[in-house]
Amino acid sequence: MNRVPDSELTMVPGGTLITATPEEGRALAFAIARHTIHNIQPDLDVLGGGRPNYATTPDSLIAAGHVVAVEFQTIAAANHYWRS
Amino acid sequence: MNRVPDSELTMVPGGTLITATPEEGRALAFAIARHTIHNIQPDLDVLGGGRPNYATTPDSLIAAGHVVAVEFQTIAAANHYWRS
Amino acid sequence: MNRVPDSELTMVPGGTLITATPEEGRALAFAIARHTIHNIQPDLDVLGGGRPNYATTPDSLIAAGHVVAVEFQTIAAANHYWRS
Amino acid sequence: MNRVPDSELTMVPGGTLITATPEEGRALAFAIARHTIHNIQPDLDVLGGGRPNYATTPDSLIAAGHVVAVEFQTIAAANHYWRS
Amino acid sequence: MNRVPDSELTMVPGGTLITATPEEGRALAFAIARHTIHNIQPDLDVLGGGRPNYATTPDSLIAAGHVVAVEFQTIAAANHYWRS
Amino acid sequence: MNRVPDSELTMVPGGTLITATPEEGRALAFAIARHTIHNIQPDLDVLGGGRPNYATTPDSLIAAGHVVAVEFQTIAAANHYWRS
Repeated sequence: MNRVPDSELTMVPGGTLITATPEEGRALAFAIARHTIHNIQPDLDVLGGGRPNYATTPDSLIAAGHVVAVEFQTIAAANHYWRS
Repeated sequence: MNRVPDSELTMVPGGTLITATPEEGRALAFAIARHTIHNIQPDLDVLGGGRPNYATTPDSLIAAGHVVAVEFQTIAAANHYWRS
Repeated sequence: MNRVPDSELTMVPGGTLITATPEEGRALAFAIARHTIHNIQPDLDVLGGGRPNYATTPDSLIAAGHVVAVEFQTIAAANHYWRS
Repeated sequence: MNRVPDSELTMVPGGTLITATPEEGRALAFAIARHTIHNIQPDLDVLGGGRPNYATTPDSLIAAGHVVAVEFQTIAAANHYWRS
Repeated sequence: MNRVPDSELTMVPGGTLITATPEEGRALAFAIARHTIHNIQPDLDVLGGGRPNYATTPDSLIAAGHVVAVEFQTIAAANHYWRS
Repeated sequence: MNRVPDSELTMVPGGTLITATPEEGRALAFAIARHTIHNIQPDLDVLGGGRPNYATTPDSLIAAGHVVAVEFQTIAAANHYWRS
């Protein structure tokens, strides 16, 4: 198997939910969502093979965006929404 | 690739979840949801090609509205629901 | 294009999440969910054309109800659940 | 149109999210979810016509249960989870 | 109709969201999710007839797990996450 | 039936939602989500038979990731987001 590199398997990259800015928090939400997929399916060839279809299907993109939104809820709460 | 402009790739446009009004908060929810899609699929031709189908399919519209609702939950909480 | 009237495009009708009663809060959840769809698809003919199918399909009705439930969570929290 | 009776269209039956017990709170979650559908589709013949299919399809039942779960989250929070 | 027994129709079995342990809280989440389905479809033959398909379809299992996760969020919050 | 071992059926492995780190919290979210499936479908042959399809289908992977995200919300809140 052409395996996802170990760095892509860390479930919470950086080891913390705390970030300096909303933008970094959002990037973390993307990374956590992506690494979740990697942990369930660590075969790069399978992941790459599915992408052309998924990334051109609006419903799949919306579903992926939904997951990022949920991860971001958690991260934003962790950071008290970067209020001040 | 006909790439989405950089301004459409900022994950949290404006760099903050704090807005003056609920209407602006809702607009931010839309923008964050849309930019999420742009980051996963930055090819404008693919995005534009999918739109005629997605934007005329009720289930897709409902799914997109669901994501905006989740993003808005986060933003509304960040703003203490603009209570006073 | 036979465009949705401007009043149907306001993202947070009334400009506030605060309502006097749960019933009004629920009505606002419906309105926000509906206006979200209008902002993504402002063509009344497309919206009207999709309705006969969506409104008679149980899974679509359930999905629409799900979105209203999420919007209502936000509004109910904003109003401290109209507790007293 | 064979219209749903008015009592089935009240969006928050009883006009409050506060209930004496978790069981009553759950019943309210069911009612709110059901009345949401009624408001989107108030034609009893359409509703009745869809039921044989939806109520025998596991995925539809799961989706309906998901909506009740979300409504119950709101009601349970409103009641401080009936903790004491 | 071969009806689900009354004990399987109680919406919140035990009449409280408070449990001694996370494991019991999770069991309650399962029970609440299952009883929701029973209340929508109380015919045991229909429920049993759907199971062979649903219980062998990954997407259906994931959807069912999602509902349990949402119910558990509510129960865990009710119990202050069994923190001490 | 080739049954999932008992250790895979514990609903909340470890008996607590409290973990030392976000990474461990995320691992617990995965475990809880997986054990939920095991409890609904404890037949290893059925689970194994479904995996080749589910684990190579982007939409299924996204749906699974969504469930992990919801479980993680609960666990992260339980741990006050491991803030300090």
